[in-house]
Amino acid sequence: MNESYERLKPYMEKAQALQTAMVLFEWDNETLAPRAAAPYTARMIGAISEEYLRVMTDETARKLAQDCGDGAGMTEAEAAALREFREEMKKLERIPAKEYREYAELTARSAGIWAEARKNRDFGAFAPTLRQVLDYQKRFASYQAEPGQKLYDVMLDSYEKGFDMESLDRFFGQLKTELVPFLRQVMDCGRQPDDAFLEGDYPKEKQEAFAGFLARYVGFDFDRGVMAVSAHPFTTNLHNHDVRITNAYTRRVDDAIFSVIHESGHGIYEQGIPDALTLTPAGQGASMGMHESQSRFFENIIGRSRAFWVPLYGRLQETFPEQLKTVSLDAFVRAVNKARPGLIRIQADELTYSLHIMVRYEVEKLLVEQGMDVRELPEIWAEKYREYLGVCPENDGEGVLQDIHWSQGSFGYFPSYALGSAFGAQMYETMKTQMDVEGLLEQGNPAPIREYLREHVHRYGKMKTSRQILKDMTGKEFDAGCYIRYLKEKYGMLYGI
Amino acid sequence: MNESYERLKPYMEKAQALQTAMVLFEWDNETLAPRAAAPYTARMIGAISEEYLRVMTDETARKLAQDCGDGAGMTEAEAAALREFREEMKKLERIPAKEYREYAELTARSAGIWAEARKNRDFGAFAPTLRQVLDYQKRFASYQAEPGQKLYDVMLDSYEKGFDMESLDRFFGQLKTELVPFLRQVMDCGRQPDDAFLEGDYPKEKQEAFAGFLARYVGFDFDRGVMAVSAHPFTTNLHNHDVRITNAYTRRVDDAIFSVIHESGHGIYEQGIPDALTLTPAGQGASMGMHESQSRFFENIIGRSRAFWVPLYGRLQETFPEQLKTVSLDAFVRAVNKARPGLIRIQADELTYSLHIMVRYEVEKLLVEQGMDVRELPEIWAEKYREYLGVCPENDGEGVLQDIHWSQGSFGYFPSYALGSAFGAQMYETMKTQMDVEGLLEQGNPAPIREYLREHVHRYGKMKTSRQILKDMTGKEFDAGCYIRYLKEKYGMLYGI
Repeated sequence: MNESYERLKPYMEKAQALQTAMVLFEWDNETLAPRAAAPYTARMIGAISEEYLRVMTDETARKLAQDCGDGAGMTEAEAAALREFREEMKKLERIPAKEYREYAELTARSAGIWAEARKNRDFGAFAPTLRQVLDYQKRFASYQAEPGQKLYDVMLDSYEKGFDMESLDRFFGQLKTELVPFLRQVMDCGRQPDDAFLEGDYPKEKQEAFAGFLARYVGFDFDRGVMAVSAHPFTTNLHNHDVRITNAYTRRVDDAIFSVIHESGHGIYEQGIPDALTLTPAGQGASMGMHESQSRFFENIIGRSRAFWVPLYGRLQETFPEQLKTVSLDAFVRAVNKARPGLIRIQADELTYSLHIMVRYEVEKLLVEQGMDVRELPEIWAEKYREYLGVCPENDGEGVLQDIHWSQGSFGYFPSYALGSAFGAQMYETMKTQMDVEGLLEQGNPAPIREYLREHVHRYGKMKTSRQILKDMTGKEFDAGCYIRYLKEKYGMLYGI
Repeated sequence: MNESYERLKPYMEKAQALQTAMVLFEWDNETLAPRAAAPYTARMIGAISEEYLRVMTDETARKLAQDCGDGAGMTEAEAAALREFREEMKKLERIPAKEYREYAELTARSAGIWAEARKNRDFGAFAPTLRQVLDYQKRFASYQAEPGQKLYDVMLDSYEKGFDMESLDRFFGQLKTELVPFLRQVMDCGRQPDDAFLEGDYPKEKQEAFAGFLARYVGFDFDRGVMAVSAHPFTTNLHNHDVRITNAYTRRVDDAIFSVIHESGHGIYEQGIPDALTLTPAGQGASMGMHESQSRFFENIIGRSRAFWVPLYGRLQETFPEQLKTVSLDAFVRAVNKARPGLIRIQADELTYSLHIMVRYEVEKLLVEQGMDVRELPEIWAEKYREYLGVCPENDGEGVLQDIHWSQGSFGYFPSYALGSAFGAQMYETMKTQMDVEGLLEQGNPAPIREYLREHVHRYGKMKTSRQILKDMTGKEFDAGCYIRYLKEKYGMLYGI
């Protein structure tokens, strides 16, 4: 037992409780709260977030965290919790309280301004706000930076420890060299599948019931989780026994199907956090990228595979006989994997997805490191989409205004999506040497796959970084080659090239 | 402006925010949270409730509240908020923190123990816990008591300011003298209506849709509120722009119909609290009794009247043609007003309802003031039910274990239900001299009735006590006579006596 840690615990627990309350307010706001509630509830959330800041910068707590020393007498889980708590403290205590409050007020407004600008396809209406948010983020990064550390590296590290511009330039460089020409090959081969049947009058209730079935099938535990409806699918959690996924239902049946598998991937990760870690600062997924690796692994590597649908496609046909009776399993699998360079990230297929991310990565570098003004965004955005994807937005709504992230100050977040996809492919390569993944899926038995991920990823929470998890699991350092091999093999097969 | 009050505000706001978070956790737990979440979430709620206690007993806040003096320079709303805040502070600071925590832990467990005992119809399994809860409540009341004040009077006053045993003895005395023999007359007249058609295969979805329609019809504002499903109907609110009602759907269609009107009555009250009061300690309904006056006014006086159903019954028949096609409006109205002495309070009709409350009031007096041991409860309960209602429970489940209230320490709460019914009847007597209530309902226009209540009740929040509201609205002191006249007239008419 570590005396100081025991005395620190009530502070950690209070901070956790306040944060959990904020998570619940946010969930409620996205899924249920009445239209007119937001401005009133925001005052309460503001007060709770101020209290959170107060706890995290409390002098006694800071002293106790220091007195814990190097973690002698603590369990591994406690040591991880302490490390995360200290990092969050350090981060917050470097930001002047006044700036923190001003920034909180700014981002409380900015999502609304962004949404309005997007509706009107008018980047100009959002640009001044975005400039302010970016300025704050750069200033905050400068407070965190070690001597000589670049600001964008600080931002990247906060989402994905151990990844900086150097490693990401290499990563995206490989993708660019390999995938941009490969994509052209795929597009030029003239074998685009028909996917028109995926769109139509798919009744919402039936979609929702099937989505619930899929979540349960891949292993989301409804004793420890719920599923609801929101404008855009997301996952959140109060702790490992209360994990919440949402889904949205449109005229495209594949939207709901693959969103729910994606969110279940996130959810299964959080349900796999052990009791010793939950409700501590180490009781979450290792990083954004590692989280995306799980969601995208379930969605794409598993969920869009032919083997996955062998035992399930009949059930899907029975659910929607009008639309799918005459569509074969193979035609369905080809359709849900159709590659098609587009303008919208969240509609992108598996092959083009990381190219959307590459655009954002390069643009963020320009904004943070090259001093590019936000006014130049629409033009540079269009240029890069033309270069990598061969398409060009006709308005800001389908261009630079499509993502909410920057309005919330999340610069450095996007690369995690691409890294996650690559992490997943690397895990898959190893996993296939350990078990017959395809065979299990064909037998309708995804449990061993999920258990393997629980064993090697989920149960560590934040005790390991994503780099450590990958290395311990696959026996080698992060290697983007796996991802490129995986994509080329899969799409080579699908398109017969 | 009052300098001290301005400085007190952040404390009040923080306390309010923590309380709002607890409301949201509770709502979520009753409506959505997954099965296995409770013990983990409870730790977070515990931490937030401790923080609430810390704010409410903060030395600086206490001093500031004192320094506000007699409220000079404050608005009426601020003065009311200050008064409520001071009262809550005073109450909490008199309870030793250790006892408060022990009690919170006890009541966190006690609802589960009660529920289990009720399921097994075994009062003996609950008795030791109930004794502990009662002991704490008596001790806490002794901390609050003014010199010479009786403990049960302290408890009663905390739910209904200005009502004590003396006034309630008189109130229940009148009810006993007038209603017990009148009920016998009604039962003996041999004109019981048929209500068998109210039970049957009423599809849940249709019930829910009709309940939503009714809520909107009586004036519940869905821009500022939501409706969900829970095991037992209830109302809660985050503030005046986020008011939440729930309903439950059974095989008895009248359950859902009158529950939703009841909860809408509570909800409309909270939606009618003005912005100047909401999110302050005075921003709620005046008292438990005043709240019940509104819910029971909507449910019974309005909702169970023939006039209310004149414009609506056709729609109800169309919704459930199988069950109601051949049932006339008059037969329906008689059925939903059927008087029938029973064992279960929440199933009681309007005429017998307050007799259920009377039993509980008399039993609580014995427990708190006469030192009766909880062991004697089942027997005394049975005796009183036999005397007032002519029925006798066959087991503890349908007897003394039916209500959750005591397990939560709510001694002194029950009388509010009966008082609320009586408040509503007194308001109704006055209202009828001001507008043609029946005519408005027959025309399908309940809005002026709701607005009248908003004007005279809702907009005051806690700025007035229930006694003040009644006096200002009706021009006279609380008078149980109105209630007795109302019941006798209504049931006299229905039963032709």
